[in-house]
Amino acid sequence: MKPSGVITITTDFGHKGPFAAIMKGVILNRFPDASIVDLIHDIPAQWPPEAGFWVSASYRYFPTGSVHIAIVDPGVGTERKILLVECDDQLFMAPDNGLLAQLLDSHPEASVYHLDAKAIGQLGLGEASNTFHGRDIFAPVAAEVAAGRLRFADIGTPTSEWIPNWVDRPQATGDQVSGVVITVDTFGNLISTIEQAMIEAMTDPVVLFAGLELPIIETYGRAEPGKFLALVNSFGFVEIARSEGNAADSLGAGRGAPIVVRNGLSV
Amino acid sequence: MKPSGVITITTDFGHKGPFAAIMKGVILNRFPDASIVDLIHDIPAQWPPEAGFWVSASYRYFPTGSVHIAIVDPGVGTERKILLVECDDQLFMAPDNGLLAQLLDSHPEASVYHLDAKAIGQLGLGEASNTFHGRDIFAPVAAEVAAGRLRFADIGTPTSEWIPNWVDRPQATGDQVSGVVITVDTFGNLISTIEQAMIEAMTDPVVLFAGLELPIIETYGRAEPGKFLALVNSFGFVEIARSEGNAADSLGAGRGAPIVVRNGLSV
Amino acid sequence: MKPSGVITITTDFGHKGPFAAIMKGVILNRFPDASIVDLIHDIPAQWPPEAGFWVSASYRYFPTGSVHIAIVDPGVGTERKILLVECDDQLFMAPDNGLLAQLLDSHPEASVYHLDAKAIGQLGLGEASNTFHGRDIFAPVAAEVAAGRLRFADIGTPTSEWIPNWVDRPQATGDQVSGVVITVDTFGNLISTIEQAMIEAMTDPVVLFAGLELPIIETYGRAEPGKFLALVNSFGFVEIARSEGNAADSLGAGRGAPIVVRNGLSV
Repeated sequence: MKPSGVITITTDFGHKGPFAAIMKGVILNRFPDASIVDLIHDIPAQWPPEAGFWVSASYRYFPTGSVHIAIVDPGVGTERKILLVECDDQLFMAPDNGLLAQLLDSHPEASVYHLDAKAIGQLGLGEASNTFHGRDIFAPVAAEVAAGRLRFADIGTPTSEWIPNWVDRPQATGDQVSGVVITVDTFGNLISTIEQAMIEAMTDPVVLFAGLELPIIETYGRAEPGKFLALVNSFGFVEIARSEGNAADSLGAGRGAPIVVRNGLSV
Repeated sequence: MKPSGVITITTDFGHKGPFAAIMKGVILNRFPDASIVDLIHDIPAQWPPEAGFWVSASYRYFPTGSVHIAIVDPGVGTERKILLVECDDQLFMAPDNGLLAQLLDSHPEASVYHLDAKAIGQLGLGEASNTFHGRDIFAPVAAEVAAGRLRFADIGTPTSEWIPNWVDRPQATGDQVSGVVITVDTFGNLISTIEQAMIEAMTDPVVLFAGLELPIIETYGRAEPGKFLALVNSFGFVEIARSEGNAADSLGAGRGAPIVVRNGLSV
Repeated sequence: MKPSGVITITTDFGHKGPFAAIMKGVILNRFPDASIVDLIHDIPAQWPPEAGFWVSASYRYFPTGSVHIAIVDPGVGTERKILLVECDDQLFMAPDNGLLAQLLDSHPEASVYHLDAKAIGQLGLGEASNTFHGRDIFAPVAAEVAAGRLRFADIGTPTSEWIPNWVDRPQATGDQVSGVVITVDTFGNLISTIEQAMIEAMTDPVVLFAGLELPIIETYGRAEPGKFLALVNSFGFVEIARSEGNAADSLGAGRGAPIVVRNGLSV
């Protein structure tokens, strides 16, 4: 796989400090032609599953051979390992804390490595700090990989074990599928873990959420202003919205809230 | 007009999801040398006029031949059209919902097109989703245009009709000009729709706002700390500020608040 | 020193307007190959010391020959001068309002200039606005310098006088060092002005903050969930955190709060 030179960065660092910018400085030091894209920096603090959800849903829109760094890392500086994943002609780096588990669940063919501390020593990196591996390990390694000077196989030990996702996969039972809200966007749309493929056998799918029963419609503008609605969003996930409004605020609902899709309205 | 390779993106997507980043991925897939600049992503949800105001005020600082995408799009997936505009050697793409009306009002010489759905079909784009045209239409078209492989005239039908601005233009009546606050910046400065050209015949312009009468001064630092002040900002618009303070918070005023400039203080 | 082509931008402009983006447009107009990195735009309004703190702590991670613009500028349009600094093979531009004082305090060998208004006139810049020197002066000058077409010595008058830092340097008295919280990150970690070098002679350093006595440990994950902790962060500054929590919110503490490091627990 030829690297594209593109590196994406996903973190829970927010925007108050220079943390993501410093990672870019480290990357540009080693690979001046890198094309660096901020994916998201507003992942809720210390919550790997949302980062994993968005990385899984986003990577396919980037050129093949892109390197995707995702850092939500409550265990930085402890014994937690770093996971390197190749799949779908894309490259992923993240702490081994469940962040990449959703991606790996759906890609059994992926090549998976744990970063080898000794190999890293040979890269001429200084000693890593205990609190900012994004700067000291992820950025320089991603730069070398994106520049085509290093492959994951050179610095990783193949593994078939990793920390599972902190959020359960949706469950299909009888004629319904149960999931949870995994993220909320700026508009207050509640995005669930339930994928279209899991409900496409239903002739008349209805979403049960926060006491509402919502048939699935095509787009936001198809509902009357103020009405709640359900749709399959542009990433293929079931989503609850409010036409010209904010569903999350109106319903007082957010991440982790249970959502069910059932075939047919209740009587 | 030779494309500059620069693409700016203005949206109401905020920063909680990967939406703008995914547009960048799509652009880089088709045009790896694109130089992409985030103009603003914090436009208030579903409020096209503010996006149009800032795009109109900002584009001239970018290289000629830049492509400016602006997406505030409550009608995505419905029958709303997409507008393509060439003027001042710059290129603009936005939903036809009033967003570009301010620009078009002041550029009667502009070339204006509606994006032709059929021409798009020939670009090899997949079927567009109903909820994310930024990714599925705007980004790939902008990439092709910015790369110099496509012109608006190739994919648009010339038109002289578009949705008007949601916000009225300032009105000059007798010896005064009336407008509204169109946006509020991070410092709490209230920026109005009233342009310098509309008041430059006044010998002694005074701004009436929220019960205050404020003569226009040169810069923030010229007022005593805590004092409210009015000035013509660096974009040529009348603005209300508070020296070393936040005018919007102090006055409880924001978008849509009426503002008047009159010649001379009241007696 | 050969310019790297990298320009970083630090401001208190926030994200609600196009201000930083317009600076990028101006830069790209003059230097299309510039590699522009947003360092931070969320510096508290009109508070230069925090910008100076982060610029000082961050620049070394960027390629040598990078240009670092920092604009927190309550005096824009008044008589305040603009400072140009070369040190450590990096270039810095900021209003002369104390922002760069921390950097200069620790780099007595730096070359320091005041920007010469007349030289600027020869650059073909239009007349600067009174309120947006970022766009009208900093961006075009940085572009010319980063492109290698201009040196600070060409446009600056050497100086040995500048406005001091608004925040005192940490004081060492007897067996303790006193400083303040200079910034708070997204996680609520309280970062102080006290550097590791000032406390490394202590055999048993203990941080006194908000009534707590905290021995210094290695990393966040080493404390029990919910416990407050102190550590030397990855930039070498003493920091207060809460394991799996938000120290700033929990303690109701923020910028300016006093912090002391003493040798040994109190009895």
